Amino acid sequence: MMPSGGGESRAEALATLAVIRHEMRTDARLSDWLARAEEEELSPAQRANVTEMKRTYTHATALPADLVAARSRAASRCEQAWRTQRADNDWQGHLPLLTEVIRLERQAAQALGQTLGLTPYDALLDVYEPGMGQERIDALFGDLEAFLPGMVDQAMGAQGSCIELQGPFAVEDQRALGLRMMKLVGFDFEHGRLDVSHHPFCGGVPRDVRMTTRYSEADFTESLMGVLHETGHAKYEQGLPHNWLDQPAGQARSMGVHESQSLLQEMQVCRGRAFLEHAAPALREAFAAQAQAQPGAFEVDNLAALYTRVSRSKIRVDADELTYPLHIMLRYRIETRLVDGSLEVADLPDAWDEGMQSLLGISTAGDYRDGCMQDVHWPSGALGYFPSYTLGAVMAAQLFAAAKRALGDVDAQIRAGEHGTLNAWLKENIWSRASLMDTDTLLRQATGASLSVDAFRAHLQQRYL
Amino acid sequence: MMPSGGGESRAEALATLAVIRHEMRTDARLSDWLARAEEEELSPAQRANVTEMKRTYTHATALPADLVAARSRAASRCEQAWRTQRADNDWQGHLPLLTEVIRLERQAAQALGQTLGLTPYDALLDVYEPGMGQERIDALFGDLEAFLPGMVDQAMGAQGSCIELQGPFAVEDQRALGLRMMKLVGFDFEHGRLDVSHHPFCGGVPRDVRMTTRYSEADFTESLMGVLHETGHAKYEQGLPHNWLDQPAGQARSMGVHESQSLLQEMQVCRGRAFLEHAAPALREAFAAQAQAQPGAFEVDNLAALYTRVSRSKIRVDADELTYPLHIMLRYRIETRLVDGSLEVADLPDAWDEGMQSLLGISTAGDYRDGCMQDVHWPSGALGYFPSYTLGAVMAAQLFAAAKRALGDVDAQIRAGEHGTLNAWLKENIWSRASLMDTDTLLRQATGASLSVDAFRAHLQQRYL
Repeated sequence: MMPSGGGESRAEALATLAVIRHEMRTDARLSDWLARAEEEELSPAQRANVTEMKRTYTHATALPADLVAARSRAASRCEQAWRTQRADNDWQGHLPLLTEVIRLERQAAQALGQTLGLTPYDALLDVYEPGMGQERIDALFGDLEAFLPGMVDQAMGAQGSCIELQGPFAVEDQRALGLRMMKLVGFDFEHGRLDVSHHPFCGGVPRDVRMTTRYSEADFTESLMGVLHETGHAKYEQGLPHNWLDQPAGQARSMGVHESQSLLQEMQVCRGRAFLEHAAPALREAFAAQAQAQPGAFEVDNLAALYTRVSRSKIRVDADELTYPLHIMLRYRIETRLVDGSLEVADLPDAWDEGMQSLLGISTAGDYRDGCMQDVHWPSGALGYFPSYTLGAVMAAQLFAAAKRALGDVDAQIRAGEHGTLNAWLKENIWSRASLMDTDTLLRQATGASLSVDAFRAHLQQRYL
Repeated sequence: MMPSGGGESRAEALATLAVIRHEMRTDARLSDWLARAEEEELSPAQRANVTEMKRTYTHATALPADLVAARSRAASRCEQAWRTQRADNDWQGHLPLLTEVIRLERQAAQALGQTLGLTPYDALLDVYEPGMGQERIDALFGDLEAFLPGMVDQAMGAQGSCIELQGPFAVEDQRALGLRMMKLVGFDFEHGRLDVSHHPFCGGVPRDVRMTTRYSEADFTESLMGVLHETGHAKYEQGLPHNWLDQPAGQARSMGVHESQSLLQEMQVCRGRAFLEHAAPALREAFAAQAQAQPGAFEVDNLAALYTRVSRSKIRVDADELTYPLHIMLRYRIETRLVDGSLEVADLPDAWDEGMQSLLGISTAGDYRDGCMQDVHWPSGALGYFPSYTLGAVMAAQLFAAAKRALGDVDAQIRAGEHGTLNAWLKENIWSRASLMDTDTLLRQATGASLSVDAFRAHLQQRYL
């Protein structure tokens, strides 16, 4: 909602708060307080709280102040430059800036790893995905790679043609439809709202969750599914335990678990046939003239085909459910090597092209913009983040399968527009547990097993083959 | 924009920030730093900055911590209760709560006065209106009382009838008209926006000014003039000097000066005939069907009559330009006596009724709701605030008269929809000077004289007689 000229004041305010927060997090007395708290007799929840506090404190104090400052400066400079350099396909201009970011990330990873007793890359992972290590991800991604490329071939060979939906679709109608669908799947409008922004996000605080989307009059399907994706994030935040709000143990568990909630909503539920059967009449109602002008376009068969179309593309954010993990594997392969020093930044474009060819059969030679410069993550110093997307997708499938086992015919409920039972299960098993236990315990208690690709593979087979 | 359930989290966040701010403002090192800064060779602007910092520090540290806490608790309890007690006309229930608030305000005023070397009431005034004292206000209000009641009689006797505007007026049309008028008078949409709230306000920060209004489909005139009033506040904020943003000397001068800017916009400019001549076609365009259905209603004569109608009423916030200062004088008379102890809270309703009878010829006996319980100020502990409204009205007239002397035919410019010259004069003489000098210097430099009621009286005579 901020007017365009408000950015500088907002940045100042955020920077001031960040400094105050950092000072609180690194207060010299904390170390002693935490040590003494650990010796007390604590309930499991209190113990989880102390564990999370200690993790935050360790991360905040592990690095020397000059490295923190240098890292922040380099990342901020590189990300700023990236905005125009990407548009200009200017890899040569970008190279020295990214090299500096990676140099400092290596140093930070090393120092953090020493403090945490982890390898450098695992130390970076610990920021976003505590408890998850490279060894574990190697195994999971290896399992995925064993079937995914072949499954993409098969799915693309098998898929028929769809009728493209012709607009224009008025923004006001799209907004009303989005709100209706949010309400249907259980977004709590007492504690959140939907607005518009250039990049969709879900932010705010658990009792006031701010979601955004963007609209194109030419296509409503992307915005609608984007809204449902963010609604998955929002419901997790809204479902966090109220008596632990503002406590470390009351926060969302990890990036991967957060993404599991958005992908469970979007991929498992809303792109599924049962949901589309319920939603199709609402879509035809929202866009009555367009639906009438295109016989068949707004029927469930066509909507399902549109929402599960598979295609190989250069761009991660536009990728479909099947090819998306291949984009992540590419980035994971590269960033682990950037961190351990076996790949230099100068060789990144070649490694990217080679990886894209082997995983997706696409060459990006010379196309830096839609190749290795497409994402903001590395320029902003966020290494160790990418795996969360695919960990989230895999978790989502495992959780939804467990919910189906626990709840009976979930598809029938979804077809009838009833999401309460599923939401209650998610609230009990994920949302209300926040960071009160580690991710592995959370998943084992919810699904009976540690994370594996089995449910994800089964889901993809069922949907795409 | 906050969803209804977000209030508690917002309150928590604000309370946390208030504590952090208070700790910064009362930091033990500040006293020494300020003393040393005062000894340095400073530019006039730097000196003004130190003066403001010292004022803030003195106010923040003058009261013992237990009095600060007791005062805040009593006011918060009383204000909370007032919301329902006012609606229930429950003076007996309100009395003990308000008595406690006043008791603590007296203590605070005494302690603050001792530190500042001021009388208790002047110490309270210093919070909102630095440099303004009871003696000065007595003189100004005395001058007003000498002519206002008689002028109200005369104006009411002279005024003709008007055609009431018949709605409904669609909210979307009202909003578009409000935005158009904000743009016309120079609101900077790069650095602010207009939204809806239950109570209109102007808040935010100078580079991101947030204005609100509320709409009634039955009447657009109130919301429109409310928007223009808040736009006056907003332009002041947006016009504060950019190189002093976030510094004490770069803040708006006082409540009275702030109100002078909103009232200059609303009362001096927008309720004037020149503005209405320019605006009338836009109003007819915005509400074409209604204008056509009521011949004459949307003509300048009728709009001017509607916007300068005088009537005696019990309610301050609904009062017109002529009777409004009488409402303020009543409150000023009473609150000075509440602070000096010559009036007890139990006797407030009688004093109110007596004052209303003498100033406005209206009895409020037994009607606490629309009598002495109508305002939130006293229940929330804001004594010393009320005079600012009328000081602002008087300043607005004096400033507008000075602008007219300096700029030639301002009415002709306004009639032509040109507000740039007036805005530039205000920016140079008021906005950009922020708190870089005291109010009296500000006014003398801008108008050539200290504050007097002369211009205000002349303005009222010209408009109402």
